[in-house]
Amino acid sequence: MYTNDMARKMSAAMNKVKMAIKAGGGHTVLSTGITGDDARMAKAVVDAGIKMLEPNHPAVALARGYKGVTTMHEAEQVRYGITVAQMAEVTQGVRNVVGKDIYITTGIPGGFTEILPMPLTDEDFLMMARAGADGLHTHKSSLYDLEELVKKAHKYGLCVDAYIGLPTDLHTFGISAEKPEEVAHLARQMEEIGTDMIGLMTGMSYEGIDAGQIPQVLKERLCAMVEAVKVPTLAEGGINIDNFRAFKDTGVNILVIGTAIDGMAGKAVAAAAREFLNI
Amino acid sequence: MYTNDMARKMSAAMNKVKMAIKAGGGHTVLSTGITGDDARMAKAVVDAGIKMLEPNHPAVALARGYKGVTTMHEAEQVRYGITVAQMAEVTQGVRNVVGKDIYITTGIPGGFTEILPMPLTDEDFLMMARAGADGLHTHKSSLYDLEELVKKAHKYGLCVDAYIGLPTDLHTFGISAEKPEEVAHLARQMEEIGTDMIGLMTGMSYEGIDAGQIPQVLKERLCAMVEAVKVPTLAEGGINIDNFRAFKDTGVNILVIGTAIDGMAGKAVAAAAREFLNI
Repeated sequence: MYTNDMARKMSAAMNKVKMAIKAGGGHTVLSTGITGDDARMAKAVVDAGIKMLEPNHPAVALARGYKGVTTMHEAEQVRYGITVAQMAEVTQGVRNVVGKDIYITTGIPGGFTEILPMPLTDEDFLMMARAGADGLHTHKSSLYDLEELVKKAHKYGLCVDAYIGLPTDLHTFGISAEKPEEVAHLARQMEEIGTDMIGLMTGMSYEGIDAGQIPQVLKERLCAMVEAVKVPTLAEGGINIDNFRAFKDTGVNILVIGTAIDGMAGKAVAAAAREFLNI
Repeated sequence: MYTNDMARKMSAAMNKVKMAIKAGGGHTVLSTGITGDDARMAKAVVDAGIKMLEPNHPAVALARGYKGVTTMHEAEQVRYGITVAQMAEVTQGVRNVVGKDIYITTGIPGGFTEILPMPLTDEDFLMMARAGADGLHTHKSSLYDLEELVKKAHKYGLCVDAYIGLPTDLHTFGISAEKPEEVAHLARQMEEIGTDMIGLMTGMSYEGIDAGQIPQVLKERLCAMVEAVKVPTLAEGGINIDNFRAFKDTGVNILVIGTAIDGMAGKAVAAAAREFLNI
Protein backbone atom coordinates (compact mmCIF):
# COMPACT_ATOMS: atom_id res chain seq x y z
CA MET A 1 0.00 0.00 0.00
CA TYR A 2 2.81 2.41 0.80
CA THR A 3 6.50 2.46 0.09
CA ASN A 4 9.11 1.32 2.58
CA ASP A 5 10.34 4.88 2.89
CA MET A 6 6.95 6.06 4.05
CA ALA A 7 6.56 3.12 6.45
CA ARG A 8 9.89 4.14 7.96
CA LYS A 9 8.74 7.75 8.21
CA MET A 10 5.60 6.69 10.06
CA SER A 11 7.49 4.32 12.33
CA ALA A 12 9.88 7.11 13.31
CA ALA A 13 6.93 9.40 13.97
CA MET A 14 5.11 6.85 16.15
CA ASN A 15 8.34 6.30 18.01
CA LYS A 16 8.26 9.97 19.05
CA VAL A 17 4.78 9.38 20.48
CA LYS A 18 5.82 6.22 22.31
CA MET A 19 8.87 7.93 23.80
CA ALA A 20 6.71 10.84 24.98
CA ILE A 21 4.21 8.46 26.60
CA LYS A 22 7.02 6.46 28.19
CA ALA A 23 8.71 9.62 29.53
CA GLY A 24 5.43 10.59 31.20
CA GLY A 25 4.94 7.20 32.85
CA GLY A 26 2.19 6.15 30.46
CA HIS A 27 0.79 9.58 29.69
CA THR A 28 1.64 12.71 27.71
CA VAL A 29 -0.01 15.96 26.69
CA LEU A 30 -0.94 16.97 23.14
CA SER A 31 -0.93 20.76 23.20
CA THR A 32 -3.17 22.58 20.73
CA GLY A 33 -5.02 25.90 20.39
CA ILE A 34 -2.63 28.85 20.34
CA THR A 35 0.27 26.57 21.35
CA GLY A 36 -0.35 24.46 18.26
CA ASP A 37 -0.50 27.19 15.65
CA ASP A 38 1.52 30.18 16.91
CA ALA A 39 5.24 29.41 16.62
CA ARG A 40 6.06 31.70 19.58
CA MET A 41 3.67 29.85 21.89
CA ALA A 42 4.55 26.42 20.44
CA LYS A 43 8.20 27.00 21.29
CA ALA A 44 7.27 28.19 24.79
CA VAL A 45 5.41 24.95 25.64
CA VAL A 46 8.00 22.72 23.96
CA ASP A 47 10.67 24.43 26.06
CA ALA A 48 8.46 23.59 29.05
CA GLY A 49 8.44 19.88 28.15
CA ILE A 50 5.56 19.32 25.70
CA LYS A 51 6.38 16.62 23.09
CA MET A 52 3.23 16.65 20.93
CA LEU A 53 1.59 19.58 19.16
CA GLU A 54 -1.56 19.98 17.11
CA PRO A 55 -2.09 22.94 14.80
CA ASN A 56 -5.68 22.79 13.53
CA HIS A 57 -7.77 24.81 11.13
CA PRO A 58 -10.57 25.96 13.48
CA ALA A 59 -7.92 27.36 15.85
CA VAL A 60 -6.22 29.06 12.88
CA ALA A 61 -9.61 30.58 11.99
CA LEU A 62 -9.59 32.09 15.50
CA ALA A 63 -5.93 33.19 15.24
CA ARG A 64 -6.58 34.94 11.94
CA GLY A 65 -9.90 36.47 12.99
CA TYR A 66 -11.32 34.69 9.96
CA LYS A 67 -14.84 36.02 9.28
CA GLY A 68 -14.65 37.60 12.72
CA VAL A 69 -15.08 34.40 14.71
CA THR A 70 -14.04 34.60 18.35
CA THR A 71 -15.25 31.29 19.82
CA MET A 72 -14.65 27.63 18.94
CA HIS A 73 -18.39 27.23 18.36
CA GLU A 74 -18.27 29.93 15.70
CA ALA A 75 -14.99 28.65 14.27
CA GLU A 76 -16.67 25.30 13.60
CA GLN A 77 -19.04 27.02 11.17
CA VAL A 78 -16.35 28.70 9.05
CA ARG A 79 -13.30 26.45 9.37
CA TYR A 80 -13.77 25.01 5.87
CA GLY A 81 -12.59 28.39 4.51
CA ILE A 82 -9.06 27.92 5.91
CA THR A 83 -6.96 26.25 3.20
CA VAL A 84 -4.66 23.23 3.30
CA ALA A 85 -1.90 25.57 2.04
CA GLN A 86 -2.42 27.81 5.07
CA MET A 87 -2.24 24.79 7.37
CA ALA A 88 0.94 23.67 5.62
CA GLU A 89 2.47 27.11 6.21
CA VAL A 90 1.46 27.00 9.89
CA THR A 91 2.82 23.46 10.28
CA GLN A 92 6.11 24.34 8.60
CA GLY A 93 6.52 27.38 10.84
CA VAL A 94 5.91 25.39 14.01
CA ARG A 95 8.22 22.62 12.80
CA ASN A 96 10.92 25.24 12.07
CA VAL A 97 11.04 26.40 15.67
CA VAL A 98 10.38 23.18 17.63
CA GLY A 99 12.76 20.88 15.77
CA LYS A 100 12.35 17.33 14.47
CA ASP A 101 11.82 15.50 17.77
CA ILE A 102 8.34 16.88 18.45
CA TYR A 103 5.32 14.97 17.07
CA ILE A 104 3.06 17.28 15.05
CA THR A 105 -0.46 16.20 14.07
CA THR A 106 -2.42 18.71 12.01
CA GLY A 107 -6.14 19.31 11.58
CA ILE A 108 -6.86 20.27 7.98
CA PRO A 109 -10.06 21.06 6.07
CA GLY A 110 -11.36 17.80 4.61
CA GLY A 111 -10.07 15.83 7.59
CA PHE A 112 -12.98 16.68 9.87
CA THR A 113 -16.72 16.07 9.46
CA GLU A 114 -17.59 18.41 6.62
CA ILE A 115 -20.81 20.15 5.62
CA LEU A 116 -19.60 20.81 2.07
CA PRO A 117 -17.58 18.62 -0.28
CA MET A 118 -13.95 19.05 0.74
CA PRO A 119 -12.01 16.50 -1.32
CA LEU A 120 -8.44 15.94 -0.18
CA THR A 121 -6.10 15.43 -3.12
CA ASP A 122 -2.80 13.58 -3.23
CA GLU A 123 -1.15 17.01 -3.45
CA ASP A 124 -2.75 18.00 -0.14
CA PHE A 125 -1.25 15.03 1.70
CA LEU A 126 2.09 15.60 -0.03
CA MET A 127 2.05 19.27 0.96
CA MET A 128 1.34 18.45 4.62
CA ALA A 129 4.04 15.78 4.76
CA ARG A 130 6.58 18.10 3.19
CA ALA A 131 5.57 20.90 5.59
CA GLY A 132 6.74 18.75 8.48
CA ALA A 133 3.54 17.12 9.71
CA ASP A 134 4.00 13.69 11.32
CA GLY A 135 0.32 12.97 11.12
CA LEU A 136 -3.20 14.21 10.62
CA HIS A 137 -5.64 14.94 13.41
CA THR A 138 -8.97 13.76 11.98
CA HIS A 139 -12.64 13.87 12.92
CA LYS A 140 -14.45 11.86 10.25
CA SER A 141 -17.92 10.62 11.15
CA SER A 142 -17.85 7.21 9.42
CA LEU A 143 -15.47 4.27 9.25
CA TYR A 144 -15.69 4.40 5.46
CA ASP A 145 -14.46 8.01 5.30
CA LEU A 146 -11.79 7.26 7.90
CA GLU A 147 -10.48 4.22 6.02
CA GLU A 148 -10.19 6.20 2.80
CA LEU A 149 -8.33 8.97 4.63
CA VAL A 150 -5.99 6.57 6.44
CA LYS A 151 -5.00 4.93 3.13
CA LYS A 152 -4.16 8.23 1.48
CA ALA A 153 -2.37 9.56 4.55
CA HIS A 154 -0.22 6.43 4.85
CA LYS A 155 0.70 6.67 1.16
CA TYR A 156 2.43 9.95 2.06
CA GLY A 157 3.87 8.78 5.37
CA LEU A 158 1.34 10.57 7.56
CA CYS A 159 -0.01 8.84 10.67
CA VAL A 160 -3.65 9.37 11.60
CA ASP A 161 -5.29 10.01 14.95
CA ALA A 162 -9.08 9.57 14.81
CA TYR A 163 -11.88 9.88 17.33
CA ILE A 164 -15.03 8.30 18.72
CA GLY A 165 -17.93 10.54 19.65
CA LEU A 166 -21.49 10.43 20.89
CA PRO A 167 -24.50 10.73 18.59
CA THR A 168 -25.71 13.58 20.83
CA ASP A 169 -22.52 15.68 20.56
CA LEU A 170 -23.21 19.30 19.58
CA HIS A 171 -20.49 19.15 16.91
CA THR A 172 -19.65 15.85 15.22
CA PHE A 173 -15.99 15.14 15.95
CA GLY A 174 -15.93 11.42 15.43
CA ILE A 175 -17.62 8.15 14.67
CA SER A 176 -20.56 7.51 17.00
CA ALA A 177 -20.53 4.81 19.66
CA GLU A 178 -22.54 4.99 22.86
CA LYS A 179 -22.20 1.99 25.21
CA PRO A 180 -18.74 0.89 26.42
CA GLU A 181 -18.96 -2.36 24.41
CA GLU A 182 -19.85 -0.37 21.29
CA VAL A 183 -16.87 1.91 21.94
CA ALA A 184 -14.59 -1.10 22.30
CA HIS A 185 -15.92 -2.68 19.11
CA LEU A 186 -15.55 0.53 17.12
CA ALA A 187 -12.05 1.18 18.50
CA ARG A 188 -10.98 -2.28 17.30
CA GLN A 189 -12.49 -1.62 13.88
CA MET A 190 -10.58 1.66 13.69
CA GLU A 191 -7.39 -0.12 14.67
CA GLU A 192 -7.98 -2.81 12.02
CA ILE A 193 -8.18 -0.28 9.20
CA GLY A 194 -4.82 1.13 10.27
CA THR A 195 -5.68 4.12 12.45
CA ASP A 196 -2.43 4.93 14.26
CA MET A 197 -3.92 6.50 17.38
CA ILE A 198 -7.50 6.27 18.61
CA GLY A 199 -9.21 8.86 20.75
CA LEU A 200 -12.49 9.58 22.49
CA MET A 201 -14.21 12.95 22.49
CA THR A 202 -14.61 13.75 26.18
CA GLY A 203 -15.82 17.33 26.29
CA MET A 204 -19.46 18.26 26.27
CA SER A 205 -18.68 20.22 23.10
CA TYR A 206 -16.35 22.71 24.82
CA GLU A 207 -18.57 23.12 27.85
CA GLY A 208 -16.21 21.28 30.16
CA ILE A 209 -16.98 18.82 32.93
CA ASP A 210 -17.50 19.27 36.68
CA ALA A 211 -14.35 20.29 38.56
CA GLY A 212 -12.08 17.42 39.53
CA GLN A 213 -14.40 14.73 38.23
CA ILE A 214 -15.42 13.02 35.05
CA PRO A 215 -18.83 11.35 34.72
CA GLN A 216 -18.93 7.60 35.40
CA VAL A 217 -20.35 6.90 31.93
CA LEU A 218 -17.43 8.75 30.32
CA LYS A 219 -14.95 6.88 32.52
CA GLU A 220 -16.43 3.57 31.34
CA ARG A 221 -16.29 4.62 27.70
CA LEU A 222 -12.64 5.73 28.05
CA CYS A 223 -11.60 2.53 29.84
CA ALA A 224 -13.38 0.42 27.21
CA MET A 225 -11.41 2.14 24.44
CA VAL A 226 -8.10 1.94 26.30
CA GLU A 227 -8.53 -1.80 26.91
CA ALA A 228 -9.71 -2.58 23.38
CA VAL A 229 -6.69 -1.42 21.36
CA LYS A 230 -2.90 -1.68 21.27
CA VAL A 231 -2.31 1.69 19.61
CA PRO A 232 -1.86 4.84 21.73
CA THR A 233 -5.16 6.32 22.94
CA LEU A 234 -6.27 9.93 23.32
CA ALA A 235 -8.89 11.92 25.20
CA GLU A 236 -9.96 15.28 23.76
CA GLY A 237 -12.33 17.91 25.04
CA GLY A 238 -13.08 19.52 28.38
CA ILE A 239 -9.75 18.54 29.96
CA ASN A 240 -8.47 21.07 32.49
CA ILE A 241 -6.15 21.32 35.49
CA ASP A 242 -8.89 20.15 37.85
CA ASN A 243 -10.03 16.99 36.07
CA PHE A 244 -6.66 16.07 34.48
CA ARG A 245 -5.88 13.49 37.19
CA ALA A 246 -9.30 11.81 36.75
CA PHE A 247 -8.63 11.52 33.02
CA LYS A 248 -5.16 10.06 33.60
CA ASP A 249 -6.61 7.47 35.97
CA THR A 250 -8.55 5.89 33.09
CA GLY A 251 -5.23 4.85 31.55
CA VAL A 252 -5.63 6.98 28.43
CA ASN A 253 -2.20 7.82 26.99
CA ILE A 254 -2.53 11.26 25.43
CA LEU A 255 -4.50 14.14 26.91
CA VAL A 256 -5.36 16.88 24.44
CA ILE A 257 -5.24 20.39 25.92
CA GLY A 258 -6.37 23.41 23.92
CA THR A 259 -9.01 25.78 25.21
CA ALA A 260 -7.60 25.56 28.75
CA ILE A 261 -4.17 26.85 27.63
CA ASP A 262 -5.70 29.46 25.29
CA GLY A 263 -7.67 30.81 28.21
CA MET A 264 -4.51 31.16 30.29
CA ALA A 265 -2.69 33.01 27.50
CA GLY A 266 -5.62 35.37 27.03
CA LYS A 267 -5.84 36.05 30.75
CA ALA A 268 -2.09 36.75 30.92
CA VAL A 269 -2.08 39.35 28.14
CA ALA A 270 -5.29 40.93 29.43
CA ALA A 271 -3.80 41.19 32.93
CA ALA A 272 -0.62 42.71 31.48
CA ALA A 273 -2.63 45.23 29.47
CA ARG A 274 -4.67 46.23 32.54
CA GLU A 275 -1.49 46.56 34.58
CA PHE A 276 0.06 48.94 32.02
CA LEU A 277 -3.16 50.93 31.67
CA ASN A 278 -3.45 51.39 35.42
CA ILE A 279 0.11 52.55 36.18
CA MET B 1 -2.90 65.67 -2.70
CA TYR B 2 -5.66 63.41 -1.34
CA THR B 3 -9.40 63.37 -1.76
CA ASN B 4 -11.79 64.74 0.82
CA ASP B 5 -13.00 61.22 1.52
CA MET B 6 -9.53 60.15 2.48
CA ALA B 7 -8.96 63.27 4.59
CA ARG B 8 -12.16 62.37 6.44
CA LYS B 9 -10.99 58.79 6.88
CA MET B 10 -7.71 60.00 8.40
CA SER B 11 -9.42 62.55 10.60
CA ALA B 12 -11.72 59.86 12.00
CA ALA B 13 -8.73 57.61 12.61
CA MET B 14 -6.74 60.32 14.42
CA ASN B 15 -9.83 61.03 16.48
CA LYS B 16 -9.66 57.47 17.81
CA VAL B 17 -6.07 58.16 18.91
CA LYS B 18 -6.97 61.47 20.54
CA MET B 19 -9.90 59.90 22.41
CA ALA B 20 -7.64 57.08 23.64
CA ILE B 21 -5.03 59.58 24.87
CA LYS B 22 -7.72 61.71 26.52
CA ALA B 23 -9.30 58.68 28.23
CA GLY B 24 -5.90 57.84 29.71
CA GLY B 25 -5.29 61.35 31.03
CA GLY B 26 -2.73 62.17 28.35
CA HIS B 27 -1.39 58.68 27.76
CA THR B 28 -2.37 55.43 26.11
CA VAL B 29 -0.82 52.08 25.24
CA LEU B 30 -0.15 50.80 21.72
CA SER B 31 -0.16 47.02 22.09
CA THR B 32 1.90 45.00 19.62
CA GLY B 33 3.72 41.65 19.42
CA ILE B 34 1.33 38.72 19.78
CA THR B 35 -1.48 41.08 20.83
CA GLY B 36 -1.09 42.93 17.54
CA ASP B 37 -1.16 39.99 15.15
CA ASP B 38 -3.07 37.13 16.80
CA ALA B 39 -6.80 37.88 16.75
CA ARG B 40 -7.37 35.84 19.94
CA MET B 41 -4.82 37.88 21.90
CA ALA B 42 -5.81 41.18 20.24
CA LYS B 43 -9.39 40.68 21.42
CA ALA B 44 -8.19 39.79 24.92
CA VAL B 45 -6.27 43.07 25.35
CA VAL B 46 -8.99 45.16 23.72
CA ASP B 47 -11.51 43.65 26.14
CA ALA B 48 -9.05 44.74 28.87
CA GLY B 49 -9.12 48.36 27.67
CA ILE B 50 -6.44 48.68 24.97
CA LYS B 51 -7.46 51.15 22.22
CA MET B 52 -4.49 50.95 19.83
CA LEU B 53 -2.98 47.86 18.18
CA GLU B 54 0.00 47.29 15.93
CA PRO B 55 0.34 44.15 13.83
CA ASN B 56 3.83 44.19 12.29
CA HIS B 57 5.74 41.98 9.90
CA PRO B 58 8.72 41.01 12.12
CA ALA B 59 6.25 39.82 14.78
CA VAL B 60 4.34 37.89 12.11
CA ALA B 61 7.66 36.29 11.09
CA LEU B 62 7.91 35.07 14.70
CA ALA B 63 4.25 33.97 14.81
CA ARG B 64 4.66 31.95 11.63
CA GLY B 65 8.06 30.51 12.52
CA TYR B 66 9.24 32.03 9.26
CA LYS B 67 12.68 30.65 8.42
CA GLY B 68 12.76 29.34 11.99
CA VAL B 69 13.34 32.69 13.68
CA THR B 70 12.58 32.80 17.40
CA THR B 71 13.88 36.22 18.49
CA MET B 72 13.20 39.79 17.37
CA HIS B 73 16.89 40.13 16.47
CA GLU B 74 16.57 37.21 14.05
CA ALA B 75 13.20 38.39 12.78
CA GLU B 76 14.82 41.67 11.72
CA GLN B 77 16.99 39.74 9.26
CA VAL B 78 14.15 37.91 7.50
CA ARG B 79 11.12 40.18 7.87
CA TYR B 80 11.32 41.33 4.24
CA GLY B 81 10.06 37.86 3.25
CA ILE B 82 6.65 38.45 4.86
CA THR B 83 4.33 39.90 2.20
CA VAL B 84 2.03 42.92 2.23
CA ALA B 85 -0.81 40.50 1.39
CA GLN B 86 -0.05 38.51 4.54
CA MET B 87 -0.06 41.71 6.60
CA ALA B 88 -3.37 42.70 5.01
CA GLU B 89 -4.84 39.31 6.00
CA VAL B 90 -3.55 39.72 9.56
CA THR B 91 -4.88 43.28 9.77
CA GLN B 92 -8.29 42.28 8.43
CA GLY B 93 -8.51 39.44 10.94
CA VAL B 94 -7.67 41.68 13.87
CA ARG B 95 -10.09 44.34 12.62
CA ASN B 96 -12.82 41.69 12.32
CA VAL B 97 -12.65 40.83 16.00
CA VAL B 98 -11.85 44.21 17.64
CA GLY B 99 -14.40 46.34 15.78
CA LYS B 100 -14.09 49.77 14.18
CA ASP B 101 -13.30 51.88 17.26
CA ILE B 102 -9.77 50.53 17.77
CA TYR B 103 -6.87 52.31 16.03
CA ILE B 104 -4.77 49.83 14.03
CA THR B 105 -1.34 50.83 12.68
CA THR B 106 0.46 48.15 10.70
CA GLY B 107 4.14 47.52 10.03
CA ILE B 108 4.58 46.25 6.47
CA PRO B 109 7.62 45.28 4.39
CA GLY B 110 8.81 48.42 2.58
CA GLY B 111 7.75 50.63 5.47
CA PHE B 112 10.82 49.95 7.59
CA THR B 113 14.52 50.51 6.85
CA GLU B 114 15.17 47.95 4.14
CA ILE B 115 18.32 46.13 3.04
CA LEU B 116 16.83 45.18 -0.33
CA PRO B 117 14.64 47.17 -2.71
CA MET B 118 11.10 46.86 -1.35
CA PRO B 119 9.00 49.23 -3.47
CA LEU B 120 5.52 49.90 -2.11
CA THR B 121 2.96 50.17 -4.89
CA ASP B 122 -0.34 52.01 -4.88
CA GLU B 123 -2.00 48.59 -4.72
CA ASP B 124 -0.15 47.86 -1.47
CA PHE B 125 -1.51 50.98 0.25
CA LEU B 126 -4.97 50.28 -1.17
CA MET B 127 -4.84 46.71 0.11
CA MET B 128 -3.86 47.81 3.62
CA ALA B 129 -6.55 50.51 3.76
CA ARG B 130 -9.20 48.07 2.59
CA ALA B 131 -8.00 45.47 5.11
CA GLY B 132 -8.95 47.85 7.90
CA ALA B 133 -5.66 49.57 8.74
CA ASP B 134 -5.99 53.11 10.09
CA GLY B 135 -2.34 53.80 9.55
CA LEU B 136 1.13 52.51 8.88
CA HIS B 137 3.77 52.01 11.53
CA THR B 138 6.98 53.04 9.75
CA HIS B 139 10.71 53.01 10.42
CA LYS B 140 12.31 54.78 7.46
CA SER B 141 15.83 56.08 7.99
CA SER B 142 15.62 59.34 5.99
CA LEU B 143 13.23 62.26 5.77
CA TYR B 144 13.17 61.82 2.00
CA ASP B 145 11.92 58.22 2.22
CA LEU B 146 9.45 59.17 4.95
CA GLU B 147 8.00 62.07 2.95
CA GLU B 148 7.47 59.84 -0.08
CA LEU B 149 5.77 57.22 2.10
CA VAL B 150 3.56 59.77 3.90
CA LYS B 151 2.32 61.15 0.56
CA LYS B 152 1.38 57.72 -0.76
CA ALA B 153 -0.18 56.66 2.54
CA HIS B 154 -2.31 59.81 2.74
CA LYS B 155 -3.51 59.26 -0.81
CA TYR B 156 -5.17 56.08 0.48
CA GLY B 157 -6.33 57.54 3.78
CA LEU B 158 -3.65 55.90 5.90
CA CYS B 159 -2.07 57.88 8.75
CA VAL B 160 1.64 57.42 9.42
CA ASP B 161 3.54 57.04 12.68
CA ALA B 162 7.30 57.46 12.21
CA TYR B 163 10.29 57.33 14.53
CA ILE B 164 13.52 59.01 15.54
CA GLY B 165 16.51 56.84 16.41
CA LEU B 166 20.16 57.06 17.38
CA PRO B 167 22.98 56.56 14.88
CA THR B 168 24.35 53.89 17.25
CA ASP B 169 21.16 51.78 17.39
CA LEU B 170 21.78 48.09 16.67
CA HIS B 171 18.86 48.02 14.22
CA THR B 172 17.89 51.18 12.32
CA PHE B 173 14.29 51.97 13.26
CA GLY B 174 14.18 55.63 12.46
CA ILE B 175 15.80 58.82 11.30
CA SER B 176 18.91 59.65 13.33
CA ALA B 177 19.09 62.55 15.76
CA GLU B 178 21.34 62.64 18.81
CA LYS B 179 21.17 65.80 20.92
CA PRO B 180 17.80 67.00 22.28
CA GLU B 181 17.87 70.09 20.03
CA GLU B 182 18.52 67.84 17.02
CA VAL B 183 15.61 65.62 18.07
CA ALA B 184 13.33 68.67 18.37
CA HIS B 185 14.42 69.99 14.98
CA LEU B 186 13.90 66.63 13.27
CA ALA B 187 10.51 66.10 14.96
CA ARG B 188 9.35 69.46 13.58
CA GLN B 189 10.60 68.52 10.11
CA MET B 190 8.69 65.23 10.33
CA GLU B 191 5.58 67.10 11.41
CA GLU B 192 5.95 69.56 8.52
CA ILE B 193 5.96 66.82 5.91
CA GLY B 194 2.68 65.52 7.36
CA THR B 195 3.70 62.70 9.69
CA ASP B 196 0.62 62.05 11.81
CA MET B 197 2.35 60.73 14.92
CA ILE B 198 6.01 61.03 15.85
CA GLY B 199 7.89 58.65 18.05
CA LEU B 200 11.29 58.05 19.59
CA MET B 201 13.02 54.69 19.73
CA THR B 202 13.70 54.19 23.42
CA GLY B 203 14.90 50.63 23.72
CA MET B 204 18.51 49.65 23.50
CA SER B 205 17.47 47.47 20.54
CA TYR B 206 15.29 45.14 22.65
CA GLU B 207 17.79 44.96 25.50
CA GLY B 208 15.62 46.98 27.86
CA ILE B 209 16.62 49.65 30.34
CA ASP B 210 17.41 49.49 34.06
CA ALA B 211 14.42 48.65 36.24
CA GLY B 212 12.23 51.59 37.15
CA GLN B 213 14.46 54.17 35.49
CA ILE B 214 15.20 55.61 32.10
CA PRO B 215 18.57 57.25 31.37
CA GLN B 216 18.71 61.04 31.75
CA VAL B 217 19.85 61.46 28.15
CA LEU B 218 16.81 59.52 26.91
CA LYS B 219 14.52 61.54 29.13
CA GLU B 220 15.90 64.74 27.59
CA ARG B 221 15.47 63.42 24.07
CA LEU B 222 11.87 62.35 24.78
CA CYS B 223 10.95 65.66 26.38
CA ALA B 224 12.52 67.56 23.46
CA MET B 225 10.35 65.63 20.99
CA VAL B 226 7.19 65.99 23.08
CA GLU B 227 7.65 69.76 23.37
CA ALA B 228 8.56 70.25 19.70
CA VAL B 229 5.39 68.95 18.03
CA LYS B 230 1.62 69.21 18.23
CA VAL B 231 0.89 65.71 16.86
CA PRO B 232 0.63 62.75 19.27
CA THR B 233 4.00 61.37 20.33
CA LEU B 234 5.16 57.81 20.93
CA ALA B 235 7.92 55.96 22.76
CA GLU B 236 8.88 52.49 21.50
CA GLY B 237 11.36 49.95 22.80
CA GLY B 238 12.35 48.63 26.20
CA ILE B 239 9.18 49.74 27.95
CA ASN B 240 8.09 47.43 30.76
CA ILE B 241 6.01 47.42 33.94
CA ASP B 242 8.92 48.78 35.98
CA ASN B 243 9.91 51.77 33.87
CA PHE B 244 6.45 52.57 32.47
CA ARG B 245 5.86 55.37 35.00
CA ALA B 246 9.22 57.01 34.17
CA PHE B 247 8.27 56.99 30.49
CA LYS B 248 4.85 58.50 31.20
CA ASP B 249 6.46 61.28 33.24
CA THR B 250 8.19 62.60 30.11
CA GLY B 251 4.76 63.54 28.76
CA VAL B 252 4.91 61.17 25.79
CA ASN B 253 1.37 60.22 24.72
CA ILE B 254 1.60 56.67 23.41
CA LEU B 255 3.69 53.90 24.96
CA VAL B 256 4.36 50.97 22.66
CA ILE B 257 4.36 47.59 24.44
CA GLY B 258 5.33 44.42 22.60
CA THR B 259 8.07 42.15 23.87
CA ALA B 260 6.93 42.68 27.47
CA ILE B 261 3.43 41.31 26.74
CA ASP B 262 4.78 38.52 24.51
CA GLY B 263 6.98 37.41 27.36
CA MET B 264 4.00 37.23 29.71
CA ALA B 265 1.96 35.17 27.22
CA GLY B 266 4.87 32.76 26.72
CA LYS B 267 5.35 32.39 30.46
CA ALA B 268 1.63 31.72 30.97
CA VAL B 269 1.42 28.89 28.42
CA ALA B 270 4.73 27.41 29.59
CA ALA B 271 3.50 27.45 33.20
CA ALA B 272 0.24 25.82 32.14
CA ALA B 273 2.11 23.13 30.19
CA ARG B 274 4.38 22.41 33.16
CA GLU B 275 1.38 22.22 35.47
CA PHE B 276 -0.37 19.66 33.24
CA LEU B 277 2.82 17.64 32.79
CA ASN B 278 3.40 17.48 36.54
CA ILE B 279 -0.07 16.39 37.66
